[in-house]
Amino acid sequence: MIVLFTDFGADDIYVAQVKAALLEHLCVDTPIVDLLHGVPNFELRPGAHLLAALQGQFPGGTVFLAVVDPEVGTTRDAVVLQADGKWFVGPDNGLLSVIAGRATRTQAWRVVWRPSVLSASFHGRDLFAPLAAWIANGALPVDKLEEIPALHARFEPADLAEVIHADHYGNALTGMRAGNVSRSAEIRIRGQRLRYARVFAEAPVGSAFWYENSIGLVELAANRASAVQLLGIEVGDPVVVIAQALE
Amino acid sequence: MIVLFTDFGADDIYVAQVKAALLEHLCVDTPIVDLLHGVPNFELRPGAHLLAALQGQFPGGTVFLAVVDPEVGTTRDAVVLQADGKWFVGPDNGLLSVIAGRATRTQAWRVVWRPSVLSASFHGRDLFAPLAAWIANGALPVDKLEEIPALHARFEPADLAEVIHADHYGNALTGMRAGNVSRSAEIRIRGQRLRYARVFAEAPVGSAFWYENSIGLVELAANRASAVQLLGIEVGDPVVVIAQALE
Amino acid sequence: MIVLFTDFGADDIYVAQVKAALLEHLCVDTPIVDLLHGVPNFELRPGAHLLAALQGQFPGGTVFLAVVDPEVGTTRDAVVLQADGKWFVGPDNGLLSVIAGRATRTQAWRVVWRPSVLSASFHGRDLFAPLAAWIANGALPVDKLEEIPALHARFEPADLAEVIHADHYGNALTGMRAGNVSRSAEIRIRGQRLRYARVFAEAPVGSAFWYENSIGLVELAANRASAVQLLGIEVGDPVVVIAQALE
Repeated sequence: MIVLFTDFGADDIYVAQVKAALLEHLCVDTPIVDLLHGVPNFELRPGAHLLAALQGQFPGGTVFLAVVDPEVGTTRDAVVLQADGKWFVGPDNGLLSVIAGRATRTQAWRVVWRPSVLSASFHGRDLFAPLAAWIANGALPVDKLEEIPALHARFEPADLAEVIHADHYGNALTGMRAGNVSRSAEIRIRGQRLRYARVFAEAPVGSAFWYENSIGLVELAANRASAVQLLGIEVGDPVVVIAQALE
Repeated sequence: MIVLFTDFGADDIYVAQVKAALLEHLCVDTPIVDLLHGVPNFELRPGAHLLAALQGQFPGGTVFLAVVDPEVGTTRDAVVLQADGKWFVGPDNGLLSVIAGRATRTQAWRVVWRPSVLSASFHGRDLFAPLAAWIANGALPVDKLEEIPALHARFEPADLAEVIHADHYGNALTGMRAGNVSRSAEIRIRGQRLRYARVFAEAPVGSAFWYENSIGLVELAANRASAVQLLGIEVGDPVVVIAQALE
Repeated sequence: MIVLFTDFGADDIYVAQVKAALLEHLCVDTPIVDLLHGVPNFELRPGAHLLAALQGQFPGGTVFLAVVDPEVGTTRDAVVLQADGKWFVGPDNGLLSVIAGRATRTQAWRVVWRPSVLSASFHGRDLFAPLAAWIANGALPVDKLEEIPALHARFEPADLAEVIHADHYGNALTGMRAGNVSRSAEIRIRGQRLRYARVFAEAPVGSAFWYENSIGLVELAANRASAVQLLGIEVGDPVVVIAQALE
């Protein structure tokens, strides 16, 4: 399976070009799955944490084409990362670094290959897609790669106490793994303090709470309402864990 | 074919997780088709009528994964419905009930199986997707089901005299089947009365009319304009059939 | 490969119906790729130029289902176009005419076949999809077609000095092929003059420039900002090439 995680837009002209480039090289029957094409493109750290949490839902051997690439056409490297049995192809700009920093076993390569035609602005199509296809076909193209000891651009792999994604329901995902947070804790955001609830239907209608979402993160939500609107949340907002509920 | 009809958002992180769960179980070569991921999630009746009209466009044997599930994690049941040779998997909250109420032959099962890991908030991925895949593979997993005489949550299967979907063109689909409405009738909505036209190009540019749309419903539209904007229409707005055009 | 280029909306109820119609006829293993479902539906010329530039990214033999069809249900013809080894199926309303006008080898057919059930408003599903599937299967259904010397509705195939697409980043694609424009030229739009830059990162943050985009067109952009917002650009805005940069 090839999984796409990009800022190319879900209804724009870019994803299909990537798919055509994949299909040119890919064995029949390899599914291509669109994970997200709305990754914020100017702030890479939230995306790095979001992908790190999401990749856990995909099976071993999955190849992620992860392209958010504001520095395309400059000297930033293209890399291939293997992390605990999954593959990641993309720019070396931090987007893959949270995964690398948390994995038990990793291996990384700089891409030295360049296609005969390489646009200045669309390496997702011209460079990363063929690589992802070859890897998904089962043969790492070692002649096109140079092993490196680690990614060059790296974010801190620890939990990120920020909002990393606002979903279309108006829920706000944070970069904090819920396994590290006590159910009795409150989460403070924008001056508000939110208590834990197990499911939406347990919270009063229209009131905000936090819960462990389906990818293991602390998520701020509201029952039958948009927490994002209710609290004026934006991606990047800091959150604070208050270890003991005080009232 | 597996057809997805959800409120998971067309550009969000949920649909890909459902597809990965499907692909884990699905035979190669079964297409997965995204029907709609923008079903309103707090009002189930319009979605139930919309799906009832749309399912007619898909061939016998199609498996619909229909998940709009505001009560996920509570005691609402998960169900499998067979209706006139098609399969529907989803929550027992009314979403499938218009189809059931209109079908000639139906059979329904409560899902008693639970996966080893079941999130509190994403049964679409954890519970419904594996079931849909097994059914699409051709083998109803009877050991995981308990037959029931009928769905528990049921909406009235008769035509719904309301707007059930506003499409991106600004057309307003109603829950009324056009075969039940005379071409000489007018449709009243928000104080306006609309006459019948066969096709868009038959109506004056910028003026609203009603017609029989391509899934057999009464639809309110405007030639080269948005009826939704023109008339201030919202999903849920009541419509009235005025049997004889009076002027 | 079948490539969809329509105004059906990326999150609406129409694309899935087209895919079901394709799958009814299509050989297994033919990929269906969504190129764009947000083509403007009332102004066909920008879409004709956009498709002409995009089709170059897809391999020989690709079948494009190109449907923007405001006159559906009237007397406009349905056509099949072969242009330099690729296939195009859609209405004869100009949408395919820029491709035809630029191609070296073309052949065109009027569709005389009508399906047993043909809706008045959705020929994309009922008429064009089966034709596209048959062609993708490798057999042109000559009994359903009548060869014609040329398309009936034709736009001028020369470069179009207008904005033809505003992408989700806020970049404005023009209908001008960059190979025809000197790098020393400036582009004037809405009273502003933009200089050339090779890549985004070469332009000052927040300032607008023009560059050759990845499909060979002159594109107006801004580094880490939206050129569309910055300059108030709309699709259809005229652009002027000023051959010598004067200052």
